[in-house]
Amino acid sequence: MQVYTAPLRDMRFVLHELFADDQFANLPAFEEFTPDLFDAVLEEAAKMAQDILLPLNASGDAEGCRLENGVVRTPAGFKAAYDSFRDGGWAALASDPSWGGQGLPESLNKLVEEMICSANLSFSLYPGLTHGATTAIEGHASEDLKRAYLPKMVSGEWSGTMCLTESHCGTDLGLLRTKAVPQADGSYKVSGAKIFISSGDHDLTNNVVHLVLARLPDAPAGVRGISLFLVPKYLPNDAGEPASANGVSVAGLEHKMGLKASATCQMVFEDSTGWIVGEPGKGLAAMFTMMNTERVSVGIQGLGINEIAYQSAVAYAKDRLQGRALSGPARPDLPADPIIVHPDVRRSLMTMRAYAEGCRMLGQWAARALDAEKHAADPEVKQRAADFVALVTPVVKALFTDLAFEAANHGVQVHGGHGYIRETGVEQFVRDARICQIYEGTNGVQALDLVGRKMPAHMGRQMRPFFHAVSNLCESMAGVPDKALAGMTAGLQQAFGALQLSTATIAQKGMKDAEEAGAAATDYLRLMGLVGMGYCFLKAAKIATDRLAEGSEDAGFYRAKLATAGFFFDRLLPQATAAFLAIKTGKRSTMALELDAF
Amino acid sequence: MQVYTAPLRDMRFVLHELFADDQFANLPAFEEFTPDLFDAVLEEAAKMAQDILLPLNASGDAEGCRLENGVVRTPAGFKAAYDSFRDGGWAALASDPSWGGQGLPESLNKLVEEMICSANLSFSLYPGLTHGATTAIEGHASEDLKRAYLPKMVSGEWSGTMCLTESHCGTDLGLLRTKAVPQADGSYKVSGAKIFISSGDHDLTNNVVHLVLARLPDAPAGVRGISLFLVPKYLPNDAGEPASANGVSVAGLEHKMGLKASATCQMVFEDSTGWIVGEPGKGLAAMFTMMNTERVSVGIQGLGINEIAYQSAVAYAKDRLQGRALSGPARPDLPADPIIVHPDVRRSLMTMRAYAEGCRMLGQWAARALDAEKHAADPEVKQRAADFVALVTPVVKALFTDLAFEAANHGVQVHGGHGYIRETGVEQFVRDARICQIYEGTNGVQALDLVGRKMPAHMGRQMRPFFHAVSNLCESMAGVPDKALAGMTAGLQQAFGALQLSTATIAQKGMKDAEEAGAAATDYLRLMGLVGMGYCFLKAAKIATDRLAEGSEDAGFYRAKLATAGFFFDRLLPQATAAFLAIKTGKRSTMALELDAF
Repeated sequence: MQVYTAPLRDMRFVLHELFADDQFANLPAFEEFTPDLFDAVLEEAAKMAQDILLPLNASGDAEGCRLENGVVRTPAGFKAAYDSFRDGGWAALASDPSWGGQGLPESLNKLVEEMICSANLSFSLYPGLTHGATTAIEGHASEDLKRAYLPKMVSGEWSGTMCLTESHCGTDLGLLRTKAVPQADGSYKVSGAKIFISSGDHDLTNNVVHLVLARLPDAPAGVRGISLFLVPKYLPNDAGEPASANGVSVAGLEHKMGLKASATCQMVFEDSTGWIVGEPGKGLAAMFTMMNTERVSVGIQGLGINEIAYQSAVAYAKDRLQGRALSGPARPDLPADPIIVHPDVRRSLMTMRAYAEGCRMLGQWAARALDAEKHAADPEVKQRAADFVALVTPVVKALFTDLAFEAANHGVQVHGGHGYIRETGVEQFVRDARICQIYEGTNGVQALDLVGRKMPAHMGRQMRPFFHAVSNLCESMAGVPDKALAGMTAGLQQAFGALQLSTATIAQKGMKDAEEAGAAATDYLRLMGLVGMGYCFLKAAKIATDRLAEGSEDAGFYRAKLATAGFFFDRLLPQATAAFLAIKTGKRSTMALELDAF
Repeated sequence: MQVYTAPLRDMRFVLHELFADDQFANLPAFEEFTPDLFDAVLEEAAKMAQDILLPLNASGDAEGCRLENGVVRTPAGFKAAYDSFRDGGWAALASDPSWGGQGLPESLNKLVEEMICSANLSFSLYPGLTHGATTAIEGHASEDLKRAYLPKMVSGEWSGTMCLTESHCGTDLGLLRTKAVPQADGSYKVSGAKIFISSGDHDLTNNVVHLVLARLPDAPAGVRGISLFLVPKYLPNDAGEPASANGVSVAGLEHKMGLKASATCQMVFEDSTGWIVGEPGKGLAAMFTMMNTERVSVGIQGLGINEIAYQSAVAYAKDRLQGRALSGPARPDLPADPIIVHPDVRRSLMTMRAYAEGCRMLGQWAARALDAEKHAADPEVKQRAADFVALVTPVVKALFTDLAFEAANHGVQVHGGHGYIRETGVEQFVRDARICQIYEGTNGVQALDLVGRKMPAHMGRQMRPFFHAVSNLCESMAGVPDKALAGMTAGLQQAFGALQLSTATIAQKGMKDAEEAGAAATDYLRLMGLVGMGYCFLKAAKIATDRLAEGSEDAGFYRAKLATAGFFFDRLLPQATAAFLAIKTGKRSTMALELDAF
């Protein structure tokens, strides 16, 4: 069974308690919002996710999308759910009030996104891509385009897409062939074929706004020849309503491993009218505004899957009777004990739980930086936040989705043979989660972005907010009398030491030989992610210890936080050592095999 | 694309070279077989796998099995492929000549199994279960039953199943409810419902022989009340041909994540006539004869998937053009370089390759022990082999299948977005491989078997052949002048030290508190598996180094073996340290969270 109740208590913890001391809080843009308002939003979002989206998750997977007479049909119930979602104002939560958004912080919005992704990952892509597209339009389009498109996209009346990939080029966009020919009226005629286009067509909105990467006729080869175009499915009339078809058609739907209720389309543009977004030849930069937003969101998708996989596995492990506890029968009244008594089952559940909590905390840290980057008044604070966002974006994307896939698989394993049966509903999490490690730049590409771009940028400046935070926390915990906290501090210090050494090694070797950085990239990203989660868990454990000492009425929550943190440091953080040892060996053995010997 | 050519050179290496010094070779039962014969068998098997089974792998997944009027239909082509397989004598390869088998060694047979599993995992289950069932019948059934059933099963004319699981009990078979009522003629009437029955019904053979666990009317509760029964779908007439229906029906087909061309059935037995196999109340022991055979075979299934996933990923990585090598264009004649130039892609490919080679070597070590256990003349050798088989069975089952799942996922990742598309064919490996971690005892159950049964049995006697082999190899390599071999030896010694310490810790703590062993089990199994593969890689590297020094004509193969071994020690063996650190912390943090807090 797919079991999900939004983890509101933990969400309030990361939102209100974990970073209460940070310099990103109290931004003027949010000063009229109260913590109570945030909590109310979370509660309403929980209802929406649990009551409207979750019931369509398994049925959407079983039914999938269909292409009928050139139009994509989403599974039964999706249209009604989308209407309810849009009418509830959920599409506009964190968007700019100038375009009809509610201007709520990303630190809140990412928690709502998590709930949506837990309840129905396929559904999340329809509004998710739209949100990304509005970001790119806001940042780079002309005022005319903004006025014509943003209000309808922000409200959720129209949806958006990101059209990058062509059959022969994904990561290497420099190879793309779609063309854009300028017209006398300032518009362009866009022609080409794109694949893997999420929400490329569907029946949830009456228009779809495509952001299309294409080349101008005189464009140079490679990425510098790429521009970005806004191409609507229907051209609006003078009243701004969708009126005439624009040569945009769906050549087919992709048949995928999972995410089946999300329409992944092969799109064809034939002399479709479009307008340039940003400068000619700067398409990739404009698209990366959207891509970076999406990358953090894909990380949150991973977190969402991790959480529902965890809750579903816990429900099963408490219910399924099989064997007896090694310490003696726990439930002698029953024919067997629930399998949650078995240490190896607990290991799986605690791993899932620790990953979910760790990612939620690290995700909140990133989301607060997104807010500060956008809204901080002090330019230094703004820059520091931007640096942190730049650094942590590939980590959030790759780490969260890798761990989500691990967690979804732990969930199947807890279910035994029943986990492999489709009707049980948990193998769907594995199939759905799998794409998150691939799209918006594979996790290998994220790791290369981290070591190849973020690490060397501005002499390592983007690393500093992260390194300083970890180092300050370790210092502040020096000599802490509590034995558990002291142990965690020692664990974090050791992993942080490994991260610092690895950083120095990669920076030094990588300067001479970029392949050295490339061969270390994935292990390095994991190491940084573990340190980031370790930082959050230590911070959380300190707060929990303090609250318990104060005699908090919510002692159960804080004891659980300490237990999960303890598990993370004991059983999961040791991966940092393996990553460090692997990084140390350098590229030699990775590159040694002769090409013909593969 | 699903790409597969049987890795014959590496198979010959593990069969003829790697263990040339072992005491299991030259068994009298095999003395008329020559290495040339073995090579000829491998070559013929390769053709069968590549030409007959592989072309049905993707189509079988797409089509699946159907239940039509109570009869299961396998996908198009399966019947003809099975006929060809049976007529080629492949079903009888390692079976006892007394029943029509060819009596070839398991050390050869497991390599053939690997090919079948690479080419078509679903197909492999039809003959695979039959082979397991014949083992149980040979070991425990009456002579009458053997004469009536074994010849037809060994030849592949009839197939076999293993009917254990019921909807409320899988691992905990003590809970099972299927009943067997003794009849005046010495037979039994068997009634009950079973689920997850692989090959429970199909159209490949004209009879199916079920081995069913059930309870006698007066049986005590728990596992001591379980007996094993042979229940054919059709009762044979006096001529031994299937004649009358026996109350065995298919209630439904399971809808699974993968393995779709394998018919996984819900079976109902209604007063079906059966005969007891072995003693009343000893059903589990008889079934475990089959189960242990199957567990090693499931490990080989993992290896098979690992290999085809590797080859398919290599083919794509050599073909797909995307980006340029970090060291400068490798193919300036092309618009981009093949992605195999990228270190992070190589890391994935080398990981898959090292896992496949490591498992193939370790699997061969286990297979030779299976042969020696059965055929050695010296009772001491026989016992040592039996001890090694007992120890290594859960490791082969769990390690190989966990690594196969990792490898299949690396394969998808190398393909990027195309890997997520069903038509590409590589996400099938992920879905197919996933069940191997679950069936025949989940990998968690394997780990508990290792630490809970195998480790303490006879004061640790079953561990000795493994520990002695590793320790002897390390000693024999002491002071080796070759720098690469010396490095590998040091790596193996360190991991082996961690294994020895972990063993002592678990044995000591586990005696007082079984949950301590349970909490360490999975990490311990991985650690032992890594040491086992490390042992094999060091042994292989030594042989390769010697052959290269001798000026072997096959230098390319040995250089590749050294490169893969180097990668294993540099990049994969460090996981041993993480496992060791996790084990050291004990059960506390795994068991700390209060039940209500989950």
